[in-house]
Amino acid sequence: MLEATLSERAKTVLTAASGRSDVPAFMVMDVMAAAARIEAAGGHVIHMEVGQPAASAPKTAIRAAHAALDSMRIDYTAALGTPSLRERIARHYRESYGFAVDSSRVVITTGSSAAFILAFMAMFEPGDRVAVTVPGYPPYRHILTALGCEPVLIETSSETRHALTGEALLAAHRKAPLKGVLVASPANPTGTMMSREALNSLISAAEAAGIRFISDEIYHGLDYAFPAVTAAELSPDALVINSFSKYFCMTGWRVGWMVVPEPLVRPIERLQQNLSISVPTLSQIAAEAAFDGSAEMEEVKRGYLENRRILIEGLPRAGLTKFLPADGAFYLYADVSDFTSDSFKFASEMLEKANVAATPGVDFDPIHGRQFIRFSYARSAQEMREAVERIGQWLK
Amino acid sequence: MLEATLSERAKTVLTAASGRSDVPAFMVMDVMAAAARIEAAGGHVIHMEVGQPAASAPKTAIRAAHAALDSMRIDYTAALGTPSLRERIARHYRESYGFAVDSSRVVITTGSSAAFILAFMAMFEPGDRVAVTVPGYPPYRHILTALGCEPVLIETSSETRHALTGEALLAAHRKAPLKGVLVASPANPTGTMMSREALNSLISAAEAAGIRFISDEIYHGLDYAFPAVTAAELSPDALVINSFSKYFCMTGWRVGWMVVPEPLVRPIERLQQNLSISVPTLSQIAAEAAFDGSAEMEEVKRGYLENRRILIEGLPRAGLTKFLPADGAFYLYADVSDFTSDSFKFASEMLEKANVAATPGVDFDPIHGRQFIRFSYARSAQEMREAVERIGQWLK
Repeated sequence: MLEATLSERAKTVLTAASGRSDVPAFMVMDVMAAAARIEAAGGHVIHMEVGQPAASAPKTAIRAAHAALDSMRIDYTAALGTPSLRERIARHYRESYGFAVDSSRVVITTGSSAAFILAFMAMFEPGDRVAVTVPGYPPYRHILTALGCEPVLIETSSETRHALTGEALLAAHRKAPLKGVLVASPANPTGTMMSREALNSLISAAEAAGIRFISDEIYHGLDYAFPAVTAAELSPDALVINSFSKYFCMTGWRVGWMVVPEPLVRPIERLQQNLSISVPTLSQIAAEAAFDGSAEMEEVKRGYLENRRILIEGLPRAGLTKFLPADGAFYLYADVSDFTSDSFKFASEMLEKANVAATPGVDFDPIHGRQFIRFSYARSAQEMREAVERIGQWLK
Repeated sequence: MLEATLSERAKTVLTAASGRSDVPAFMVMDVMAAAARIEAAGGHVIHMEVGQPAASAPKTAIRAAHAALDSMRIDYTAALGTPSLRERIARHYRESYGFAVDSSRVVITTGSSAAFILAFMAMFEPGDRVAVTVPGYPPYRHILTALGCEPVLIETSSETRHALTGEALLAAHRKAPLKGVLVASPANPTGTMMSREALNSLISAAEAAGIRFISDEIYHGLDYAFPAVTAAELSPDALVINSFSKYFCMTGWRVGWMVVPEPLVRPIERLQQNLSISVPTLSQIAAEAAFDGSAEMEEVKRGYLENRRILIEGLPRAGLTKFLPADGAFYLYADVSDFTSDSFKFASEMLEKANVAATPGVDFDPIHGRQFIRFSYARSAQEMREAVERIGQWLK
């Protein structure tokens, strides 16, 4: 009996991956591998493909981690995070945005990545349709899919400064009902930002239609065009996601947070108990101390501002004249359709010939991504000037 | 138009949590809160409710973390983990189990918690039935449910030393097809272990029927009755989950690993890129160095062995005569049905009267849990002796 079931079918079942794990790989990985080959052969690549700050965590954070290692056992913490970090983040809203968030609504997460999983699970059932913008951060749609939800891609355009509008959202909602919408400002990959009016009007339209609102604010603090507005100030029902990875340069620490609607606190606490137990303890301790290092981080931000100036002035001279408003984050999204109909090929050649690495738009936008590449300007001003120079030489 | 849709229905939609986030809370949380109240009032509680070692990470791990903080930026790592940690774990299999695992099959995870999510997602579709044993670790079934799978509870009994058998598995499979099965040895909460024969026969039965096998080996290294056997040695299609939390006392670091079937490596890499980006970097560095601290950890293990002896000899004298074979981990699962039909009430009274905290079985077993409590013996021998004394006094 048993032998009869040891069929080829059983063997396939035992080795095949699930359908929902079939998420696409990032094209940028191929760019990074090619860059590594050039460097191994002695070339000098300017890395503008990685969305990661070149600076380290603030010294205050590193000191706090040292002190914790010397003085305490690194135990699990409460599932929602250490009370002192949750309080410190609530204070951050008072001090930086000028309005009160109760610390009971602050949830610490293992980076913004875990926050997306918790937020989607707590808000949406399998089968729910959730709107995201294209271009946009690819894991939004891949995590939704892996959790059984259906990402609904809404295109943005230059007419609305690449902001999603209430009208566009409701148009998609009329085709088939949406349960949620997720936007980011400043955005990845575009670097564009939504004004207070644009954000407020989108949240109002969404909530009036019963569409839940998630605001990815991971690039807050890195706003150059105008001050970024938090959705938490505009609606108590909005769910806000943030992280220490970008402004505080703490990528590898994997620590972020959410401000969640009050009725979701307990469900999210129970989910986190089961899905994670708790967030890395040392990272929570370092994150709390990071707020004391903001002078250091403001210096880093001034560096991005200078890099941005170099690119905005230099790229047009080098031949890349079309790009989206570089309002915030550390990204510039350039339209290269005058040169190519395949931005992956463009990025590959730019890497090969000019030794400048950038990310092809296809990673962010399955529709129009082949027209765009993303430059990350989180490294030194010297490298930015050199990149402009090399691209100019190459495009000539 | 918009105003008309701002209905009560929309308001409910905006605030209610999803059905799948409705996972039960742990009863032990109430025990811990009551223990904290007793301590705040000056009482001295012996904590046998928490599944967490009292010792710290090995000194080698802490030194490596200090050194990394001083010498490098804590960046993202590769999604599958740092190559050197993956190699070190492969070496661990050669040295500790005496057989070769290719490091390409080793995947670093954010604790075993993240490993469960990745494994379930990569192996199972929504709707798939996956067998778990009761009593068992509650997040198994809660994570499966949150991911849209159906946990199928199979009871174990003393006739099989609380091991799941191939017969019991196939009986459940005949009722409705199973896609997977997950077992742990040493197990939580029971502390029981599966012999090589029992594990081998279960894996063979599962795989012959096309049922995928997941082995939770988080308590490996803490084996007293006989050496624990890894499923990785018995089948290349078994998926093994392990962690640095228990043997290496690194709970709050949130770092674990999997050994995965070769065809799942790439799907899991893409899932991890999207779901986590990477595992906390400092924890990976510390984990690699932890292997050099095994002399220190063997000393900790000898402490558990002594604690186990104190409880096995002492609890019967104190009045608790029935418990499962305490083969491994640091748990003793006691049958208290001679005293109560409600182990939560029993645990509450034992805490109140004897100031000994333990976990009611209902957290682990929705069927028979009211007959059991779990003692964790990961603290000092002095506390174990005191606990036996107090329980004896109270039960008199």
